[in-house]
Amino acid sequence: MHIVAIGGSDAGISAALRARELDPSADVTVVVADRYPNFSICGIPYYFTGDVHPWQTLAHRTSADLEATGMSLRLDTFATRIEVAGRRLEVRDPDGSESSIDYDELIVGTGALPSSAGIAGLDELGPEDGVHVLHSMGDTFALERDLDERQPKSAIIIGAGYVGLEMAEAFIARGMDVTQLQRGPEVLSTLDPELGGLIHDELVRHGVDVVTGSRVETVTRNPNGLTVTGIHHGEPFERTTDLVLAVVGVKPNTDLLERAGATLGAAGAVVVDESMRTGLPNVWSAGDGVVTHHRLLGVTYLPLGTTSHKQGRVAGENALGGSARFAGSLGTQVVKVFDLVAARTGVREHEAIAAGFTPASTTAAADDHKAYYPGAKPITIRVTGDAGTGRLLGAQLVGAYGTEIAKRVDTFAVALHNEMTIDAFSELDLSYTPPLGSPWDAVQVATQAWARSQPVRA
Amino acid sequence: MHIVAIGGSDAGISAALRARELDPSADVTVVVADRYPNFSICGIPYYFTGDVHPWQTLAHRTSADLEATGMSLRLDTFATRIEVAGRRLEVRDPDGSESSIDYDELIVGTGALPSSAGIAGLDELGPEDGVHVLHSMGDTFALERDLDERQPKSAIIIGAGYVGLEMAEAFIARGMDVTQLQRGPEVLSTLDPELGGLIHDELVRHGVDVVTGSRVETVTRNPNGLTVTGIHHGEPFERTTDLVLAVVGVKPNTDLLERAGATLGAAGAVVVDESMRTGLPNVWSAGDGVVTHHRLLGVTYLPLGTTSHKQGRVAGENALGGSARFAGSLGTQVVKVFDLVAARTGVREHEAIAAGFTPASTTAAADDHKAYYPGAKPITIRVTGDAGTGRLLGAQLVGAYGTEIAKRVDTFAVALHNEMTIDAFSELDLSYTPPLGSPWDAVQVATQAWARSQPVRA
Repeated sequence: MHIVAIGGSDAGISAALRARELDPSADVTVVVADRYPNFSICGIPYYFTGDVHPWQTLAHRTSADLEATGMSLRLDTFATRIEVAGRRLEVRDPDGSESSIDYDELIVGTGALPSSAGIAGLDELGPEDGVHVLHSMGDTFALERDLDERQPKSAIIIGAGYVGLEMAEAFIARGMDVTQLQRGPEVLSTLDPELGGLIHDELVRHGVDVVTGSRVETVTRNPNGLTVTGIHHGEPFERTTDLVLAVVGVKPNTDLLERAGATLGAAGAVVVDESMRTGLPNVWSAGDGVVTHHRLLGVTYLPLGTTSHKQGRVAGENALGGSARFAGSLGTQVVKVFDLVAARTGVREHEAIAAGFTPASTTAAADDHKAYYPGAKPITIRVTGDAGTGRLLGAQLVGAYGTEIAKRVDTFAVALHNEMTIDAFSELDLSYTPPLGSPWDAVQVATQAWARSQPVRA
Repeated sequence: MHIVAIGGSDAGISAALRARELDPSADVTVVVADRYPNFSICGIPYYFTGDVHPWQTLAHRTSADLEATGMSLRLDTFATRIEVAGRRLEVRDPDGSESSIDYDELIVGTGALPSSAGIAGLDELGPEDGVHVLHSMGDTFALERDLDERQPKSAIIIGAGYVGLEMAEAFIARGMDVTQLQRGPEVLSTLDPELGGLIHDELVRHGVDVVTGSRVETVTRNPNGLTVTGIHHGEPFERTTDLVLAVVGVKPNTDLLERAGATLGAAGAVVVDESMRTGLPNVWSAGDGVVTHHRLLGVTYLPLGTTSHKQGRVAGENALGGSARFAGSLGTQVVKVFDLVAARTGVREHEAIAAGFTPASTTAAADDHKAYYPGAKPITIRVTGDAGTGRLLGAQLVGAYGTEIAKRVDTFAVALHNEMTIDAFSELDLSYTPPLGSPWDAVQVATQAWARSQPVRA
């Protein structure tokens, strides 16, 4: 049995690890387009803040660790074509020559590519112009080289999602002037603006020039640097800077599977079922290139590293003949932004409505632990539930780093997974000690506030 | 409608608050034996560490706050007899005179009393002798006065449960020599000894002289201080000290209800159903005086403040004619001991066996967040599951303060509440960002380790 995984990131490596774990006799090969298998792409911003060094520590496992599990790595090897009927993968080898790899089962984890979001100039300009994306170790080295060689004093970050916010922190840590341009009305658009506003304030408090409502149209190079133009609240704007980082989302990298005959679905991602079957015989796919089965929204596209790991694990098991199913995403996410942490799980109102619910939301603030014990800080928690059934639909949390936001959102995630009602959540037996909580934890203060806001149900 | 609650601690106050919240027209009176309603007894150790000051801040709510909700407080008023048929409560007023209060519904929250665990001398000696318990604000003031007046240099703490461990930290913070005597083989006997041993090491690291396997038999006063004698691993021992703190557990305070005709059950606690009915007409009870409905163990006795709050809330709602039910305890607990935090939820193997399960347990260690981000520390997690069904039965966690142990145990608690399998837990969509977690959170590393330890199930 020869299993071939394409992709050295979360999905491909998880699949390969799972296959080797379940069947130590399986022959497993991973085809990796660069030299950096199993690197933590989520950790790259912390390389630029200076928290992580050297860059090699970003590897979840080294190549030697991976090979010690019994898998083979084909580094700097680019998959060019899948010959489905012949169960053969054509690749371009490091020396530029073409060769092929026969497989019994193929798992495609080619992930996503940075989007240019229709901004003119982004596709033409590159690191040598001071225009960067941040999606691979190659991008990382290119940005580092540019920072070291040119010592840019200012940067414009286009986008204020997770990576954009983390990189604002990194550039500020390096002493740069940072402008963050966000198309929508508030930063971190995965949260309701009420909570995103808390993150906005934190950015401003640390010196980031945040410009929301700004639609970038062009990036151009000029003798003095880079010029970004666009529309800000209906008026044209133009800003000049030393460096541009565009982090405006990703698009699924489907080229290989599309040419092999796979079907595209939500957001142009490859359609897979919950077993990670592509529909092509002996071809599985997982990660940022495929659609996401969401427990509340159904089939959508929500690329997240955690999901890629889980889908990859399912694909690896099923390629061996297993019957694993991806349990489904809840869209659980967390990000640290300077001294705050923001998290969410489940759905917000507009998503809930689209999924057929009748959502209602309330926002409450409660201390992370008893106020009499030093260091208590408020956590803002927004709870969304179905007004008809009282079912928990989602939660969003913002609070200080150190207030256990990341795991508090996880208690909501476990409740969502189990389709709990908000009332049942309020009665959960959660832990308490004065330095770390309250007899009714902050999360239950929030769900009780939701319940009080609702008309009494029979 | 006149609702009378007896008891100024968690159960009585929660009941009164809930009744006032649901029916602002209800006449609610709380009879409180001392002057300190709604004080956080769990916070007392932090008064002695110096973290909390002044003592008044230990109040969850002040008397004025409570009265502002519309309830009446009868402080320094001791309930002496319930006349069930006449719906009348006899009390001793602050001036020593007897009077009575008519009620429509009565909620008894008289809690528990410190146990002397059969140790001779404990019942006879008191604060004036340098022998203390720590169960009320009165005990707190007595201990404080003794510490201030005598400036004792040494203390023996009998017991190494939650309060005992917290008070070891407090006495060490005050510069005292501390000996901690524990009857069982390891401190914190609510955890398996493997994890309790980590707490033991932490106590020793901070200078506590920990003596496990020591059964205390007598405490006597002598001209030079206090002498504690007993058996240590089969040999007699004797230790002399300036101060003794006995924290060897509690016994339900059932006198009032027992005389009124209530039935006693597990551990001598008053039998109630999940509605908090005592079986006596118009008499409800909640908190440390009643049996505990446990979702895995059935009816047991497990006095915890969190449970008292929840049971009290149920009693307050039902006294008004509601139909709330206590959702059941999972025994979720957490304690900070110096720089460590220990937590548990669900059952351990011996409890699981008693409840009819076939438990298996594994212990794993995983970093609280990605190792490349500064400050990562290992968390030790012991998972217990049913070997036959794969159902999650319990989890125990020990790790550094700051590693989000308290909320990680809560994710296990939510899973237990929903009777999840360990495999399903491993697939939960939990949050991840490098400073606060891993793509597979430490809790999932632990459940995956459990799964790997098991024979493959069909």
